[in-house]
Amino acid sequence: MADQEEPEDGQAGTGPIVLVSHRGPVQFGREDGERTVERGGGGLVTALSGLAGQLSEALWVCAALTDEDTAVADEHDGGAFDVDDDGLALRMVRVDPEAHEQFYGVIANPLLWFVQHELWSRSRNPDITRVEHDAFEQGYAAVNRDFANVVAEEVAARGGDATVLVHDYHFYLLPEMLRAACPEVFIHHFVHVPWPQADSWRILPPSMRDAVFTGLLGNDVIGFHTQRFARNFLLGCEELLGMPVDLEEGTVSVDGRTVRARAYPISIDTEEFEARASSPEVEEHREALSSIRREHLILRVDRTDPSKNIVRGFKAFGILLHDHPELCERVNFLALLQPSRQDVEEYADYTERIRRVVADVNLEHGSSDWQPIDLRLEENLDQAVAAYTLFDVLMVNAIFDGMNLVAKEAILVNQNDGVLALSENTGAYEQLGEASVTLFPYDLQQQADALYEALTMPTEERRRRREAAAALVREYDVGRWLGNQFDDIRRWRAERST
Amino acid sequence: MADQEEPEDGQAGTGPIVLVSHRGPVQFGREDGERTVERGGGGLVTALSGLAGQLSEALWVCAALTDEDTAVADEHDGGAFDVDDDGLALRMVRVDPEAHEQFYGVIANPLLWFVQHELWSRSRNPDITRVEHDAFEQGYAAVNRDFANVVAEEVAARGGDATVLVHDYHFYLLPEMLRAACPEVFIHHFVHVPWPQADSWRILPPSMRDAVFTGLLGNDVIGFHTQRFARNFLLGCEELLGMPVDLEEGTVSVDGRTVRARAYPISIDTEEFEARASSPEVEEHREALSSIRREHLILRVDRTDPSKNIVRGFKAFGILLHDHPELCERVNFLALLQPSRQDVEEYADYTERIRRVVADVNLEHGSSDWQPIDLRLEENLDQAVAAYTLFDVLMVNAIFDGMNLVAKEAILVNQNDGVLALSENTGAYEQLGEASVTLFPYDLQQQADALYEALTMPTEERRRRREAAAALVREYDVGRWLGNQFDDIRRWRAERST
Repeated sequence: MADQEEPEDGQAGTGPIVLVSHRGPVQFGREDGERTVERGGGGLVTALSGLAGQLSEALWVCAALTDEDTAVADEHDGGAFDVDDDGLALRMVRVDPEAHEQFYGVIANPLLWFVQHELWSRSRNPDITRVEHDAFEQGYAAVNRDFANVVAEEVAARGGDATVLVHDYHFYLLPEMLRAACPEVFIHHFVHVPWPQADSWRILPPSMRDAVFTGLLGNDVIGFHTQRFARNFLLGCEELLGMPVDLEEGTVSVDGRTVRARAYPISIDTEEFEARASSPEVEEHREALSSIRREHLILRVDRTDPSKNIVRGFKAFGILLHDHPELCERVNFLALLQPSRQDVEEYADYTERIRRVVADVNLEHGSSDWQPIDLRLEENLDQAVAAYTLFDVLMVNAIFDGMNLVAKEAILVNQNDGVLALSENTGAYEQLGEASVTLFPYDLQQQADALYEALTMPTEERRRRREAAAALVREYDVGRWLGNQFDDIRRWRAERST
Repeated sequence: MADQEEPEDGQAGTGPIVLVSHRGPVQFGREDGERTVERGGGGLVTALSGLAGQLSEALWVCAALTDEDTAVADEHDGGAFDVDDDGLALRMVRVDPEAHEQFYGVIANPLLWFVQHELWSRSRNPDITRVEHDAFEQGYAAVNRDFANVVAEEVAARGGDATVLVHDYHFYLLPEMLRAACPEVFIHHFVHVPWPQADSWRILPPSMRDAVFTGLLGNDVIGFHTQRFARNFLLGCEELLGMPVDLEEGTVSVDGRTVRARAYPISIDTEEFEARASSPEVEEHREALSSIRREHLILRVDRTDPSKNIVRGFKAFGILLHDHPELCERVNFLALLQPSRQDVEEYADYTERIRRVVADVNLEHGSSDWQPIDLRLEENLDQAVAAYTLFDVLMVNAIFDGMNLVAKEAILVNQNDGVLALSENTGAYEQLGEASVTLFPYDLQQQADALYEALTMPTEERRRRREAAAALVREYDVGRWLGNQFDDIRRWRAERST
């Protein structure tokens, strides 16, 4: 194939690129009668936007999520249109609102998100009823079908031999549908959330879990953040579907095709992030935060998602103050928490539990001029970056987390020989665990002890760890994440065509 | 070795036998100033009592659980004494009451039981604190140490080359301790509860979970009810401890020793059980139950343990009545539930949730002369056996269950071509799944549909399945369970000594 001759070039060897994700790189709105364009939210879009810049003539397929998105899609008769000067084209798929609500609000976000982050409480929930079965068929599968049809059309328009990049847990069924329509296409799927072990997938009945697995097995490559998630996927294929799996090779054999499960740890754009850290806006927040700083600063920056384990983190901090009263008045725990999905009862309850435990710890250990926990429920990235530069200990004690980019961002720009206190169940732990103090997320005493160890670690040891972690973040940045995936895509496409 | 010459005989090839379990075969009490002797409770003791009958000159080591047990132990200076005419000796270990409470009431029953039955709700509990750490060290490990010392003493008294049979989740640390004291001993451990996947063990910090795994790796053989649990154990050794594992051989290599993980599905004494089913007491209950019977009888018999998934079972039954109103007035759901651990808040709450959902279903679907669910919260084995003979469908929808002997007992003595509706997460499912209607425990709609399928199945198909299941139960009875374990013990002891 001609396009494999110059594999060092961006698109060479991949054929035409079609990228699929639920949210696109831009979102249209309307303000004062004028159309507005905003960069779409979410870490996924941030990471993929780097990709778009690298690839000319790529097409990005996403959902039309706002009324104005739909208006823009209508203006192009539902087809593709150029979105910037780099040659990136966008196609916004118009989805029936009811089907979208079932897809997003019943299946993807509660059901799959909770399975993949181990958030179900099995003796109480979920109760899978006809509502969920209907939503899976008429919402999740239907939206996957709509997108598969659009992508198949675009692949055919590009001669069939394209590379399709599918993103995340919204589109587990799409690859098998697309494979049936376009047998020659090369499909690479990246899963941005944890992949749990088979018994957690057994929370779903076979009509759903088997569909998820066989849907994904339509891919040529399935990328995960860690070896552990890739292994869980392969073992799941064996345990749930009885498929032949090679754990050492990282492959499953599907009807004579080889499907690969691989780890590609996502990262950040380190240059861009370091530039942001030295911006005037961040400097302003740094000054404000420096004034509240005492001897030690513990920091956490999270969405208020139960998977982040925020309540246990504060309980552990309370134990630290109980066990080491000499720290009182000398340490602050700054918690910058972005409220998340507050329209969902489970999330609103979780925020209330956070407020409650903060009140309890501050009441028990605080004094008239010192409140141990400084809780800020707001979204302010500049303030967060300012705090990244200042912390002594960053607490990341997630129950499960696909990667946790906060850990990478924060250790990169920290100027205080800060120590990462990192849950063993984050994707980041596979890379940064050795440079961190490990947290075991259900063990309050262990977390309190680990915070104490981090706070009292000799300066040279703190510096050594911070430098080691920051060097890893710089070496394996988002460009490496993309580059490794594209190197593999080119290699496996070439192998396939020989 | 001389004792290997006649492997067909009971004890030949095993050397002297020392059996260890928390509860023993008898329990002493005091009534009206007289000592009483009762057979100990629990399915484990029932199964092992068959073993004791087979083996002469065996020693059974158990805990002194009652005041009178302690008095009896004191009378024998803590040493062994004969308990019956078959030559079975008993040694009741006196345990410090506070250590025993930590061992049993903090670690074994809530913490390990909940991990092994997937009952924790990770975003809320457990909170592992100093209480649990202390209980693990000063309770669980200390009681394991006490028992290991006693067993080591008894093994030494028998010349060192004994076979020690350890039972269940109370004694995960004992084998490693015993191995250190008696390197030549052959240790076989049977785990009567499910063995979950590694990520569930990660609920415990390494100081506990690693201790559990390395403790068990002191054994020569670890028996589980199913291949699935044995595989989970082996994968756990690899994932949590980085041990070299051979999944096909079912082995782990530990310091040059080979440790085997094997499935031995426990069963019942079929002859004894069939005799009981035709006793006059059972016949009396049969008559009483027959009078309440309408066209269809759905039955469940369980302890009120959240792992049994009783609330979802009733919700599914409500959906069945909603989807098939023609069944109203024609079907009864008889639920014989033995109250369990009602002094523990979580269990008392669960019983309340059961009462609540029964009231809701009966209110919504019942009429003045028909209550859909007949809930009996009591312990009455004769009544349960009578119900076994009568049911059309037995519902076993457990979240996780080591084996579930109710399924085996009930299908053996059923006289009505009853159908098993069996959760995929029970140990029994590996043997009886094909003869059953499968239940997926979190899917209410699927369970309702499966109940309907079972209730409306043609008689010949119901009979074929019942006969197939009963034949399996007869073929793999408790004698086979014991026999297979002893065959393997003899073979592997012989291999080891060559």
